[in-house]
Amino acid sequence: MKIAFIGLGNMGSPLAAHLIAAGHELNVWNRSLEKAERHKSAGATVAKTPGDAVKNVEIAITMLADDHAVESLVLPSGGVIDSMAKGATHISMSTISVDLSRRLADEHTKHGQRYIAAPVFGRPDAAAAGKLFIAAAGEKDVVEHCRPVLESLGQKVFVLGDKPEMANVVKLSGNFLIASVIESLGEAIALARKYDIDPHAYVDFLTNSLFSAPVYKTYGGIIADQKYTPAGFKLRLGLKDVRLALQAGEGVDTPLPIASLIRDHMLTAVSHGMEDMDWSSTAKLAAKNAGLE
Amino acid sequence: MKIAFIGLGNMGSPLAAHLIAAGHELNVWNRSLEKAERHKSAGATVAKTPGDAVKNVEIAITMLADDHAVESLVLPSGGVIDSMAKGATHISMSTISVDLSRRLADEHTKHGQRYIAAPVFGRPDAAAAGKLFIAAAGEKDVVEHCRPVLESLGQKVFVLGDKPEMANVVKLSGNFLIASVIESLGEAIALARKYDIDPHAYVDFLTNSLFSAPVYKTYGGIIADQKYTPAGFKLRLGLKDVRLALQAGEGVDTPLPIASLIRDHMLTAVSHGMEDMDWSSTAKLAAKNAGLE
Amino acid sequence: MKIAFIGLGNMGSPLAAHLIAAGHELNVWNRSLEKAERHKSAGATVAKTPGDAVKNVEIAITMLADDHAVESLVLPSGGVIDSMAKGATHISMSTISVDLSRRLADEHTKHGQRYIAAPVFGRPDAAAAGKLFIAAAGEKDVVEHCRPVLESLGQKVFVLGDKPEMANVVKLSGNFLIASVIESLGEAIALARKYDIDPHAYVDFLTNSLFSAPVYKTYGGIIADQKYTPAGFKLRLGLKDVRLALQAGEGVDTPLPIASLIRDHMLTAVSHGMEDMDWSSTAKLAAKNAGLE
Amino acid sequence: MKIAFIGLGNMGSPLAAHLIAAGHELNVWNRSLEKAERHKSAGATVAKTPGDAVKNVEIAITMLADDHAVESLVLPSGGVIDSMAKGATHISMSTISVDLSRRLADEHTKHGQRYIAAPVFGRPDAAAAGKLFIAAAGEKDVVEHCRPVLESLGQKVFVLGDKPEMANVVKLSGNFLIASVIESLGEAIALARKYDIDPHAYVDFLTNSLFSAPVYKTYGGIIADQKYTPAGFKLRLGLKDVRLALQAGEGVDTPLPIASLIRDHMLTAVSHGMEDMDWSSTAKLAAKNAGLE
Repeated sequence: MKIAFIGLGNMGSPLAAHLIAAGHELNVWNRSLEKAERHKSAGATVAKTPGDAVKNVEIAITMLADDHAVESLVLPSGGVIDSMAKGATHISMSTISVDLSRRLADEHTKHGQRYIAAPVFGRPDAAAAGKLFIAAAGEKDVVEHCRPVLESLGQKVFVLGDKPEMANVVKLSGNFLIASVIESLGEAIALARKYDIDPHAYVDFLTNSLFSAPVYKTYGGIIADQKYTPAGFKLRLGLKDVRLALQAGEGVDTPLPIASLIRDHMLTAVSHGMEDMDWSSTAKLAAKNAGLE
Repeated sequence: MKIAFIGLGNMGSPLAAHLIAAGHELNVWNRSLEKAERHKSAGATVAKTPGDAVKNVEIAITMLADDHAVESLVLPSGGVIDSMAKGATHISMSTISVDLSRRLADEHTKHGQRYIAAPVFGRPDAAAAGKLFIAAAGEKDVVEHCRPVLESLGQKVFVLGDKPEMANVVKLSGNFLIASVIESLGEAIALARKYDIDPHAYVDFLTNSLFSAPVYKTYGGIIADQKYTPAGFKLRLGLKDVRLALQAGEGVDTPLPIASLIRDHMLTAVSHGMEDMDWSSTAKLAAKNAGLE
Repeated sequence: MKIAFIGLGNMGSPLAAHLIAAGHELNVWNRSLEKAERHKSAGATVAKTPGDAVKNVEIAITMLADDHAVESLVLPSGGVIDSMAKGATHISMSTISVDLSRRLADEHTKHGQRYIAAPVFGRPDAAAAGKLFIAAAGEKDVVEHCRPVLESLGQKVFVLGDKPEMANVVKLSGNFLIASVIESLGEAIALARKYDIDPHAYVDFLTNSLFSAPVYKTYGGIIADQKYTPAGFKLRLGLKDVRLALQAGEGVDTPLPIASLIRDHMLTAVSHGMEDMDWSSTAKLAAKNAGLE
Repeated sequence: MKIAFIGLGNMGSPLAAHLIAAGHELNVWNRSLEKAERHKSAGATVAKTPGDAVKNVEIAITMLADDHAVESLVLPSGGVIDSMAKGATHISMSTISVDLSRRLADEHTKHGQRYIAAPVFGRPDAAAAGKLFIAAAGEKDVVEHCRPVLESLGQKVFVLGDKPEMANVVKLSGNFLIASVIESLGEAIALARKYDIDPHAYVDFLTNSLFSAPVYKTYGGIIADQKYTPAGFKLRLGLKDVRLALQAGEGVDTPLPIASLIRDHMLTAVSHGMEDMDWSSTAKLAAKNAGLE
């Protein structure tokens, strides 16, 4: 299949490599040319603009940092929508707002194009290992058309509904749930430490009993070690996602009180200069609030 | 070993049975005689008072409903402490406050007795199946002395520290973490439903990707089904435990903001007549607050 | 002085009347022409467009519903900025975001014009009676130049700083403080009612002892009477302002946890169909959460 | 009238002096004898025990630090209840829990005695100046019987209901409302400071417009000055009262979410060593959380 891949950062780059490995013909584009060039030797064609990349492809994939990046590359004249062929499909894999996802859906429809959202769960190492979980949503036949491509990008594809923004809701609420795990673990571990309980023994107990999920192991370990740098996922990106989850809630008059609480703690962490630490550093704040550190 | 078992409710009864099956000589006592009599045929001796039950035993185990029950049976003249032999050990398996656990430790020391706390994680069916997780704490040699008994009561024993109340902190903070899972799932599922996402598909996604722990499966299922009765663990008991976690925090000047938020939601649920529903019915409240139901 | 007045709603209309009464030459514009025509007999000139209204005036005043209304009338070609003379001054009295206020400041500077923000505190009846409090900010000499005009519009003018957005911060945080009074009163009155205390006696006590400010009298009375319609200020407008206060906080990495809590309660109220009630109807929710009503 | 006054601290001492000045015959008792002796020259009789003080009096007044002090002096054999005559009246002016107030009511009834609660609002200087506000509750004729005494102790007496604990609910919820003012002002002033608004100008604006109540003037001034020592009312006492308000809420299944939030912030303040600062130092924490200080 002829595919365009826009956005070759930590997440996009390994995904593009998977597509080439799977035998697809790939046009790639990235803001900094250098990262795009790396895929040349594997057989990718490096495009000069996003518009050039998506001309004549069957599927265009975007994996970009945020709403702003997606908007500025996809919507303007000469951009992705303007350049895609009628009938071609855009798979948006970025973590973006529900509102933008709806707007993309509308614009593609107006241009006779097809659009699904398929954001992912997992860190760059999971992307490289083909271990991402993919949450997809959109019109059923479009999703099915894209399924083989998606399956070559991760370990499992979940279809969450027939409107693309449903996948964005799943992504944002999923990140909210991870942030909730971090916040509650942070509070519980601070309490344990105040009672002189060894935090590693405590986390060991949790993750070998009721809380055996990967997310508890990952973040329980970081918090017990108090090792918030280098960041796996930066606090300011986490704050952005919690904010998008709150916005998704506002859009349907739904409060998310735990998300509000986390947002406030993250803002405090940012005001303390922790924005480039791992987003689990809200646990550092919980320790501080308990008089530790 | 000669053991006394005080408290033969949903949790205590299967544990007593395990001890008899393991070959221990058991004195049992329960407030309602009937439940004690059931263990007679298996070989237990039914005592008339808690004091009678613990005379001449090496280990006395209590598994009672709350602080009040423990205080009224253990502390008064003619009660457990008053009747236990010097050198005998009390294993407190009830979910009680940190303060009471410390007081028990002090009293046992004054009486030349030994004391550990060993609260459990798991529901009555897990107790029956020998699948409980046991969090123990106390002086190292005392814990080791009790280990074979504890191991016959559950699937795994974790030792969390040398002061008994540490195990109570682990139990209370563990219940707080479960309540956090329920609250955050409740909010996330309400959001998903408002976007017309099927709650079962949503929970299926979560529990087959990052949130694969039992606690997400159990409560995700209940919330997706909106099936809060019959209660596995009643809301008013959950509220009691969250309150004890907050008290444990107060004792060491440690705020637990998520626990505060959960407490407030549970109080609202109680004021809405939901106190005998499963404690996951705070998710019903989250749905209500989103205009669902 | 030659003045333009844009926006003749409940608040703007009495202010325009004050200016005419004070002897100023007034151009008026309103989206619905009818409201503008009413000022004709008093001597105002009705303009066809906001641009027409502000041509050749020394001062242009805008009093509009929200960011969107201000943006769409002030920024486009042919709008207020495009049509004002160099050296003329724009007084923005609307409750708008800090971001928009900054953007207006920038645009006016680019066009050689002057700009201050002067939002007001008080309801329409206070506007009619000349009893508004005005919070002004901007370059000192510009504010002083506008002072006589502002003084003819309210009972007192406060100058809060030399950057226009400071006045917007004061307005938004002021509304946040009022919302905090409502929320805390709602909780306290619900508690009092549960203990069979007469809510009117309770409010009477408060407002005749430590809480003698008008804001407690107004909202204490509404809550004790449970009379949330007709709305003095609609819940959805209150929610908008609390959201703008939170955004102002985000802009400087400052959490406002009470505002987060109020936002969540207001969202719940909206999801319960209360968006057109008075914004003090969050107190109705507090009563509901206590099992009352 | 023959009156006993138990508890001559900062608040009790000026009240006792008012009673002597009003011509009443006074027995006084205080834990540290020295403070009692000071009233001797004015004509008071210094009793050796609380029991001695209340024998043969018509009215016994207690003004003590907390539940513990009241319990230990009033309930034991030889204490206040044991020694009061049948038909005599106990006026409890201390800030105590709803539960203890109910228990006192029960005990007095059992002993054929009468009991009202009459806690006060105001600081020691207000007590000395006769400026306290008094919130009284209890059986109507008993309250009326005590009214002349109460009126000699403060500037205004409010009767809140016929059950004594109603007055305690009013006192605790009133302190909660003051704490809410402090918390919301702390957040708002931190926001204003981040936008370079002078905090004194900001408070001046608030207290001369909508927030003209004494409580805003007192605490707005302290926060703008960042002068949290010496404490007018210590943080740890404020935390105690917020906790009692939360307990009063629990007793009737009523959440007080703002009180929960304040409790958490106060605990953090205590863990930062601020327990002996003025309770408005939660505003210092709000500033810290905004990256100020």
